[in-house]
Amino acid sequence: MSIQKPKGTQDLLPGEIEKWQYLESKARELCRKFNYREIRTPIFEHTELFQRGVGETTDIVEKEMYTFLDKGDRSLSLRPEGTAGVVRSYVENKLYGEPDVSKLYYVGPMFRYEQPQSGRYRQFHQFGIEAIGSVDPSLDAEVIALGYTFYKEIGLKDVTVEINSVGNPAVRAAYREHIQQFFAPVKDQLCKDCQSRYDRNPMRILDCKIDQKFCEGAPTIVEHLDEECRTHFALVQEYLTALDIPFRLNPRLVRGLDYYTHTAFEYKAAGIGAIDTIGGGGRYNGLVGQIGGNDEPGVGLGLGLERILLVLQAQGVEIPAAKPLDVYLIGLGEAAEKRIVGLLHELRLEGLTAEKDYQSRKMKAQMKSADRYNASYVAILGDNELEKGEISLKALATGEQETLPLADVARTLAARLHG
Amino acid sequence: MSIQKPKGTQDLLPGEIEKWQYLESKARELCRKFNYREIRTPIFEHTELFQRGVGETTDIVEKEMYTFLDKGDRSLSLRPEGTAGVVRSYVENKLYGEPDVSKLYYVGPMFRYEQPQSGRYRQFHQFGIEAIGSVDPSLDAEVIALGYTFYKEIGLKDVTVEINSVGNPAVRAAYREHIQQFFAPVKDQLCKDCQSRYDRNPMRILDCKIDQKFCEGAPTIVEHLDEECRTHFALVQEYLTALDIPFRLNPRLVRGLDYYTHTAFEYKAAGIGAIDTIGGGGRYNGLVGQIGGNDEPGVGLGLGLERILLVLQAQGVEIPAAKPLDVYLIGLGEAAEKRIVGLLHELRLEGLTAEKDYQSRKMKAQMKSADRYNASYVAILGDNELEKGEISLKALATGEQETLPLADVARTLAARLHG
Repeated sequence: MSIQKPKGTQDLLPGEIEKWQYLESKARELCRKFNYREIRTPIFEHTELFQRGVGETTDIVEKEMYTFLDKGDRSLSLRPEGTAGVVRSYVENKLYGEPDVSKLYYVGPMFRYEQPQSGRYRQFHQFGIEAIGSVDPSLDAEVIALGYTFYKEIGLKDVTVEINSVGNPAVRAAYREHIQQFFAPVKDQLCKDCQSRYDRNPMRILDCKIDQKFCEGAPTIVEHLDEECRTHFALVQEYLTALDIPFRLNPRLVRGLDYYTHTAFEYKAAGIGAIDTIGGGGRYNGLVGQIGGNDEPGVGLGLGLERILLVLQAQGVEIPAAKPLDVYLIGLGEAAEKRIVGLLHELRLEGLTAEKDYQSRKMKAQMKSADRYNASYVAILGDNELEKGEISLKALATGEQETLPLADVARTLAARLHG
Repeated sequence: MSIQKPKGTQDLLPGEIEKWQYLESKARELCRKFNYREIRTPIFEHTELFQRGVGETTDIVEKEMYTFLDKGDRSLSLRPEGTAGVVRSYVENKLYGEPDVSKLYYVGPMFRYEQPQSGRYRQFHQFGIEAIGSVDPSLDAEVIALGYTFYKEIGLKDVTVEINSVGNPAVRAAYREHIQQFFAPVKDQLCKDCQSRYDRNPMRILDCKIDQKFCEGAPTIVEHLDEECRTHFALVQEYLTALDIPFRLNPRLVRGLDYYTHTAFEYKAAGIGAIDTIGGGGRYNGLVGQIGGNDEPGVGLGLGLERILLVLQAQGVEIPAAKPLDVYLIGLGEAAEKRIVGLLHELRLEGLTAEKDYQSRKMKAQMKSADRYNASYVAILGDNELEKGEISLKALATGEQETLPLADVARTLAARLHG
């Protein structure tokens, strides 16, 4: 019996993988321009990191993590998101000792045990950035602009930026009470989850799909911002305008993570139905301290690559396909078949993408293979050509044929195709 | 209290990460020339896959896997190596239905619970290739040549290729008896592990560090090859010679995985002491069938990136460092400081790598920052220049200064630096 991939995971195969490579190289290129450098943290972390860093009362930590004991009885969890690990690494490696703001990016797999659905997998992939060490609102704007520019450069259409301020801890504490007061009269009618949220994390009620009917008219946090928060939020908006990033205020935007302060934002795309969020992020001025470091402010974003690919497809955006083969080599006769093994290697060392048959197929099947690979040239070596030190070359696009000295063919083709 | 990374894992930080990016881009480039295309399989698989595909009696499966139950009570394991997942994916996605040989590569994290030591981590990273669908010995040679060329292109010195034939199942069954007969007289003196190996997997005794003293004079498998195995092995050697790949026969080479048939090979490097293997692989003609697919032959390799970086360092090989910054922007005065936020974005959209200060530091500290980033230019905008619509530019290498119209600076610099 054959074994299947685990539920909710994907195999990314040739044909599809080129899209991933394209998105990733675009992300890396953009990060270079914006002066973000890559960081890679482990696939799993101590479970405690996510309890502290993502929040014990979040759905992610309460319900969705892959948690296990290793053989040394440590509780480890596959990372459900990217920020906590990066911040842990920032603290552990004392990056706060560096004089400049730490501007970091990551691309990689994350894991959440959720019900799989279109564009949602248990192993999914995020591109994210984190900028730690500054409260400058121009940095919030830069982070938002980087994400927006990424979508634009890969060809996504109709991307909307929504922003909000979720305040500082003092503002949030006061707002929490306003929210509890607002929901107090209907508390018993809320869903079971929200009744528990009422005490532990009442802001989360506003996110509940079931209880939207009770949310109308609820107080928003922006109405309760203090002077510091208002100034910061106004500057973020001023900078976004200066950067030509269109945005919309959404006072209901709170995001599913506990660590945000001040700016919270999401990107929405048209074309994939109800779940239209394709990325988001925000400022997290308390998180570094929470994870055990100095009290350093930060701001970041995370974009879901599966979701982005879904929108690209829905919008009919073309992504560059695999590059064609330069040369397909065919040997006819025993000596020639052996000789092309060395010739193939020579072509590759000259920088050409080259291939041959490995299945002793007939000439016709090999020509078909060259077609499938979209080869620029087919090079055919027969035993009699081998004796004469020559090789036949056919350009597949034009059908043009020529004969070249066997000893020069690698250099000649390299100069012609990549010269 | 702060939280540490899990034991045996690494954070790959800016400064170090550029080496990883370099190795990976070299690997990808080489795979393109050799016509291998990327595949990505999940980080975890059903545990049964590794029991079947790697072998239940191997150390990897018996002692070293991260195995856990998910919330649906499935037994999953973090992948301890790359081949089993690729072969599972090949079968599940019916890649055997394609007319050409499936030539696949992967780069990514693997996981083994081992005692961490220099160059050995619990999360480690491999670059591997798998070619499935052909028994052609030129494919064995191609795989070996690809690895060898990779080492050469990244600048590794003194890499040795060792090869052996471990035969087909009939040869191995007969050899197994020879081995048992050989060790029978000293069976009781073998270490505890080897006494258990004696019945279950006697070939593995030859690998045992403790019992090397008993291994002298043991029969080798190459002495017992049949006609088919001898012919295949002779052709692999003939092709390696044709490809100019220096190799050495090592009749003791068996590798730690059960699935190999015919060709087995390892790469050794000088400069890192006793554990000198930096990669290896072999042919696995039974594996696809074992995992539940048609009986398709395959051959592949896996190279350990941590180990390679260690050797590169020991050999003093230079790896290209991070690229310098194009422009560091400094604003002097309130209006100018705000204006450079937009200008910075403009520079980046023009393709330049550009940066500014986010910490309200003094001019002198910002100049130091530009130096640290190895910036080509510092661009300084003061409030009075802003009024005149100009900006000052200083080339850090020469100290040369000039004044440019503010409206042109992005385009002018882009043309000068990347034009």
